[in-house]
Amino acid sequence: MSKLLVTGAAGGLGTLMRGRLDSVAKTLRLSDIAEMEPGGADAEFVRCDLADRNAVMSLVEGCDGILHLGGVSIEKSFDKILPANIVGVYNLYEAARAHGMPRILFASSNHTIGYYTQDTHLTADVPLRPDGLYGVSKCFGEAVASLYHDKFGQETAIVRIGSCFEKPRDHRMLSTWMSPDDFARLIECVFRAPRLGCPVIWGVSDNDTRWWDNTATAFLGWKPKDSSEPFREAIDAAIERPDADAPDAVYQGGKFTAEPIHRS
Amino acid sequence: MSKLLVTGAAGGLGTLMRGRLDSVAKTLRLSDIAEMEPGGADAEFVRCDLADRNAVMSLVEGCDGILHLGGVSIEKSFDKILPANIVGVYNLYEAARAHGMPRILFASSNHTIGYYTQDTHLTADVPLRPDGLYGVSKCFGEAVASLYHDKFGQETAIVRIGSCFEKPRDHRMLSTWMSPDDFARLIECVFRAPRLGCPVIWGVSDNDTRWWDNTATAFLGWKPKDSSEPFREAIDAAIERPDADAPDAVYQGGKFTAEPIHRS
Amino acid sequence: MSKLLVTGAAGGLGTLMRGRLDSVAKTLRLSDIAEMEPGGADAEFVRCDLADRNAVMSLVEGCDGILHLGGVSIEKSFDKILPANIVGVYNLYEAARAHGMPRILFASSNHTIGYYTQDTHLTADVPLRPDGLYGVSKCFGEAVASLYHDKFGQETAIVRIGSCFEKPRDHRMLSTWMSPDDFARLIECVFRAPRLGCPVIWGVSDNDTRWWDNTATAFLGWKPKDSSEPFREAIDAAIERPDADAPDAVYQGGKFTAEPIHRS
Amino acid sequence: MSKLLVTGAAGGLGTLMRGRLDSVAKTLRLSDIAEMEPGGADAEFVRCDLADRNAVMSLVEGCDGILHLGGVSIEKSFDKILPANIVGVYNLYEAARAHGMPRILFASSNHTIGYYTQDTHLTADVPLRPDGLYGVSKCFGEAVASLYHDKFGQETAIVRIGSCFEKPRDHRMLSTWMSPDDFARLIECVFRAPRLGCPVIWGVSDNDTRWWDNTATAFLGWKPKDSSEPFREAIDAAIERPDADAPDAVYQGGKFTAEPIHRS
Amino acid sequence: MSKLLVTGAAGGLGTLMRGRLDSVAKTLRLSDIAEMEPGGADAEFVRCDLADRNAVMSLVEGCDGILHLGGVSIEKSFDKILPANIVGVYNLYEAARAHGMPRILFASSNHTIGYYTQDTHLTADVPLRPDGLYGVSKCFGEAVASLYHDKFGQETAIVRIGSCFEKPRDHRMLSTWMSPDDFARLIECVFRAPRLGCPVIWGVSDNDTRWWDNTATAFLGWKPKDSSEPFREAIDAAIERPDADAPDAVYQGGKFTAEPIHRS
Amino acid sequence: MSKLLVTGAAGGLGTLMRGRLDSVAKTLRLSDIAEMEPGGADAEFVRCDLADRNAVMSLVEGCDGILHLGGVSIEKSFDKILPANIVGVYNLYEAARAHGMPRILFASSNHTIGYYTQDTHLTADVPLRPDGLYGVSKCFGEAVASLYHDKFGQETAIVRIGSCFEKPRDHRMLSTWMSPDDFARLIECVFRAPRLGCPVIWGVSDNDTRWWDNTATAFLGWKPKDSSEPFREAIDAAIERPDADAPDAVYQGGKFTAEPIHRS
Repeated sequence: MSKLLVTGAAGGLGTLMRGRLDSVAKTLRLSDIAEMEPGGADAEFVRCDLADRNAVMSLVEGCDGILHLGGVSIEKSFDKILPANIVGVYNLYEAARAHGMPRILFASSNHTIGYYTQDTHLTADVPLRPDGLYGVSKCFGEAVASLYHDKFGQETAIVRIGSCFEKPRDHRMLSTWMSPDDFARLIECVFRAPRLGCPVIWGVSDNDTRWWDNTATAFLGWKPKDSSEPFREAIDAAIERPDADAPDAVYQGGKFTAEPIHRS
Repeated sequence: MSKLLVTGAAGGLGTLMRGRLDSVAKTLRLSDIAEMEPGGADAEFVRCDLADRNAVMSLVEGCDGILHLGGVSIEKSFDKILPANIVGVYNLYEAARAHGMPRILFASSNHTIGYYTQDTHLTADVPLRPDGLYGVSKCFGEAVASLYHDKFGQETAIVRIGSCFEKPRDHRMLSTWMSPDDFARLIECVFRAPRLGCPVIWGVSDNDTRWWDNTATAFLGWKPKDSSEPFREAIDAAIERPDADAPDAVYQGGKFTAEPIHRS
Repeated sequence: MSKLLVTGAAGGLGTLMRGRLDSVAKTLRLSDIAEMEPGGADAEFVRCDLADRNAVMSLVEGCDGILHLGGVSIEKSFDKILPANIVGVYNLYEAARAHGMPRILFASSNHTIGYYTQDTHLTADVPLRPDGLYGVSKCFGEAVASLYHDKFGQETAIVRIGSCFEKPRDHRMLSTWMSPDDFARLIECVFRAPRLGCPVIWGVSDNDTRWWDNTATAFLGWKPKDSSEPFREAIDAAIERPDADAPDAVYQGGKFTAEPIHRS
Repeated sequence: MSKLLVTGAAGGLGTLMRGRLDSVAKTLRLSDIAEMEPGGADAEFVRCDLADRNAVMSLVEGCDGILHLGGVSIEKSFDKILPANIVGVYNLYEAARAHGMPRILFASSNHTIGYYTQDTHLTADVPLRPDGLYGVSKCFGEAVASLYHDKFGQETAIVRIGSCFEKPRDHRMLSTWMSPDDFARLIECVFRAPRLGCPVIWGVSDNDTRWWDNTATAFLGWKPKDSSEPFREAIDAAIERPDADAPDAVYQGGKFTAEPIHRS
Repeated sequence: MSKLLVTGAAGGLGTLMRGRLDSVAKTLRLSDIAEMEPGGADAEFVRCDLADRNAVMSLVEGCDGILHLGGVSIEKSFDKILPANIVGVYNLYEAARAHGMPRILFASSNHTIGYYTQDTHLTADVPLRPDGLYGVSKCFGEAVASLYHDKFGQETAIVRIGSCFEKPRDHRMLSTWMSPDDFARLIECVFRAPRLGCPVIWGVSDNDTRWWDNTATAFLGWKPKDSSEPFREAIDAAIERPDADAPDAVYQGGKFTAEPIHRS
Repeated sequence: MSKLLVTGAAGGLGTLMRGRLDSVAKTLRLSDIAEMEPGGADAEFVRCDLADRNAVMSLVEGCDGILHLGGVSIEKSFDKILPANIVGVYNLYEAARAHGMPRILFASSNHTIGYYTQDTHLTADVPLRPDGLYGVSKCFGEAVASLYHDKFGQETAIVRIGSCFEKPRDHRMLSTWMSPDDFARLIECVFRAPRLGCPVIWGVSDNDTRWWDNTATAFLGWKPKDSSEPFREAIDAAIERPDADAPDAVYQGGKFTAEPIHRS
């Protein structure tokens, strides 16, 4: 790939990943609503508010792949989620359509299905059960991806990310953790496939405790190599196990299910 | 029920249904963005733009049931769909939550799954495949209904309406038609059930040609009594059968799949 | 059939059914732990405690079909359920094995799956979820029937009876009611089939509101003809609809789920 | 339709059906390997051996629909089945391809799945289990139909006929009977559908005892109106019920499962 | 865990496991109907007949976990199975309910499903098919566990043990073997999980030949590390492969399916 | 095994495999329509045209296992496929039946399902979708194998081979490749199993990118040990990735789907 657009490049996930994309693209166009340093000879930075239709239109031009990590990534008020995660996603797909439909990896979230209990094993085609307005906005994004695929042939890998950090941080993340290296491998698989379609992929490492089943997307050849298991002891030592009735032990979405509807 | 709020009461569907709700509620509160005559001693009219948060908050107060037919019901530009079908749905659920969570019947649509082909038999738990921005907005609404049910216990009947008119109007509607009387019977079942939950129901009559399976919601006891079959001959006489490759013969969403993304 | 053994003939169900078996068998052997009048030229009465192994052995001799309605049919203490419903069932199958393996209709119960919620549509092969010790004893009986079929070829129709009374008596029974006439038709189908095997059949009429799916046993040709729907209005008039959180509105087993473990 | 080709027109099924096709086509081209009288102003007769490639090529020319009933329809030796049912089917599809791909109704058979037991409820997508060389030849035909659909867009209705006679003739046929009138209605549905595809349809009336599930093809709108039930009493009176271990009571294919491999 | 009750501690399985529980509990309360030496500073022994309600009540007091290996573990007469495996299980659950509902691991058995053939791949939610009265008693136990979970929230891991010995002993055990170390790892997973519920788990190592699928309980994080494969050669050398029609080659329950109903 | 018949021994697959069968059989009977050198002290060669019934009858005599690799293995005209792949398979099964029903491994093909797209994950029981006349002939062979199993107890392992070469040769083969060593291991599993039945097995190595699911046949204990992944880089370097719309990127059958019906 010649140039990969990375939205949300200044955020947590963007920061983790942008140094791991060498094998995917020759150059990166990094973008965020916040200012940042591109930090690398092969990267350029374009500041952009995803809710600004014209800005997004320019942002996408000239890219032949999009890693869409941008937008709000935690539970917030509807007024905050609407511009970036709803209007912004629409803007991005319209811009992609206008510019040759570069393949998109859309960072969706386990919070689209957060109300399933942790003793449920999920394939990617179960009905959605979002656990907050953030999750609802990701459901919206998945619907847009599906529409543009069916109507125009736009390809998207919808990746329902579990918890992507350097290490798992609590007991629930022993099940939801995706290592940044495994995510990098997934990104590579997504952009190398001769034909992608519009699959839904669980973004999770090869953890022993697991809830999600990627059998249906085995055609992509992604085999996560990391596991949360080596971190179990340290987490057990550092953090108390959640109560059997705590949201972190009951629901796949964990604490998000206990969040209120934020007002501002 | 004492008072049923009907949104979109001045629209096509609202006009068809508001005379058929006697057995459901003592009085009706009719609402629309357009002016209208309530037309009946037991009905009051409140003009309301669903995108106006405060107005919706007042609108819901004092109602113990909501028949939500309001919003855009055809393919339009994103700028037209956003206020009524996205912001408006959020406003409605917030208002319901503030006012005792009256049971809601949410008029969703077959256009949430319009890209399935007509030779596919669907249960209500298949992944969504919207056929336009209108369909995407209904996917959003279904996600909001699911969230408010899981988080707060708000009950909603999500009814994916096929084609609700006095009669079926073309060949595709022989499969998608729901008679207004059957819809009225469904409304009655939804509001009489001791416990509703948040089921997805296909809004379709007992047609011979059919694509949708309501087995999973048989607990509601809705048995549609009408069929499109008596209208087949007249339609065959009046309208040419669609070509095998016409959207109306290929996709469940019919002509919606051939609509462009509207710009204004 | 020459002679049909009916256990539990003095109980509620036995009383309802014993006058409806003319087309099934020439003569009846009625049995119960309580005294009763056989009431009919073609019927004989044999008093019998199902927990008495030898008595059951004699009881079965000479019969070419068994309608097993006997035993405890409501929630009771383990000490009361054990002899009739556990030891008694073992005794019955051993006696049948000793006497040519006459076909058995085993009256099982919806209380084997009573903890499923009422918005769940069940096929007969779902995992069991009994709602009390009575339900557990019926699970035991189903396991015995399965064992004797696999090991010896003993045929049993396992009928999970909903609510078999002259009329439905409350709102839940609008979904669970099986009319005595429909049960009589089922008995006929069970005993006329050239080959029965060991199927599980939901014992329920053709009600509009329904939870149970008999598709898998359509080979038997049982089509219930009655429906609870004509009784809805009277029940609505006579009895208050259950609260949304009442066991009668939540669980398929209804009030049984609210029973304690009885101590005596 | 202007002209419908009916192969096997002189056979049992052809004789039953050819007087029932008025509403389907203006004229019929009847064909058989045996001589026959076309019997009707709107019918022509063309004698043809299906194994003769050139003859079949001519036979199909000028027809805009094909009702393929021809070939061997009972268990015979491989040498007898090969020309008509294997070579013949290939010839027919090649001829159809050469002449505009008129829609085909292919008379397949329950003997493609005859080794399933009668207590099994089948959807049309179960793996095949033919009960003889005849059944194997129909599996071949279904594979050819699938190939020509996927490769060229040739449409076929694969109809797995149960037992199509004026009346059911034995106990097994109470489950497998398709009335000629119901078959005529099915033919009409197949040829009127704007888009057919290549569905597998169980050819069976609305019998009380049934093994086969046509839910997946409900998009065609075929609702059989006849039932075997009115014939049950007469069959019970005239014929002894089969033994529990008789092929006619065990297998869906009935006596065919007990046939040897014929040598000549 | 402070104190783990191990029933059946003097039996084969108990003997294998009691030295492998150090990481699970600080102290053990070992129990059996037979006399035994506790053999370890951190273990106490309490002799107990499971059929004795009061004795079981005392036995459970003060324990915060139960490993229930007790009862009859082979095919025996009903009179022998009833007290330990039926009455005993009821007693155990009542005692647990009286004493704070300590988590239970219930040793169920593959003999609950022993009549499935060895070419069938089973998930844990298939209908039960016990292969003897022992298997029936384990079906009873599973029903009790389900009841106490649904009614009271009592958690149980239902482990359907294959064959737990130091080594696999015959060809069938190449498929059913669970190494004691793998069982110890499972016990650890069961008691460490913040929330357990009432799952059914196949108790089997990571053998190459396998019939059972634990995907649904992957949330527990149990990954068996041993395999029967290294033992294949020795078994092939020492024991003749079973005949194709021998119970040990046909049924998952193996020789148990060939056992009679024992009379004493 | 004493003597294993290998048909098609001079072909590509036969050549690859015949040196890898030492652990399976003491001696080999190699056969082909073409002349060849048996090449080994423990092998004999018998030239045979599979379409010659008597010759096949003799060929099978004295063998206690058959590895059926013979027949046409690429897309050809019907006239070429008919004798070897249709008549020949019938001849082989009749010969096996006459000579004690030695176990058969039938080399079927992914071209029986070649029209499924590459983003579909298949279990072995999906409906067939052959991609050419070659694929149709393999569907025929699978039907014959099923028939002889159900009717006579003849056991067959139906192996749907992906691409069996020393190395994968193009991008599609990264998903379909089965290493010759993995095939040899499968052959061993098939012939060592005490009871085989008639399973369908996907013949594919443990590749990262994969479409096919062998879970249902895990009872055989075959665990492929090779993977195509080490060859990816070389293939990427040597061959251009197929276009997203090229048959090799769209369909599981790859280029076969683009083949015409051959005429000669």
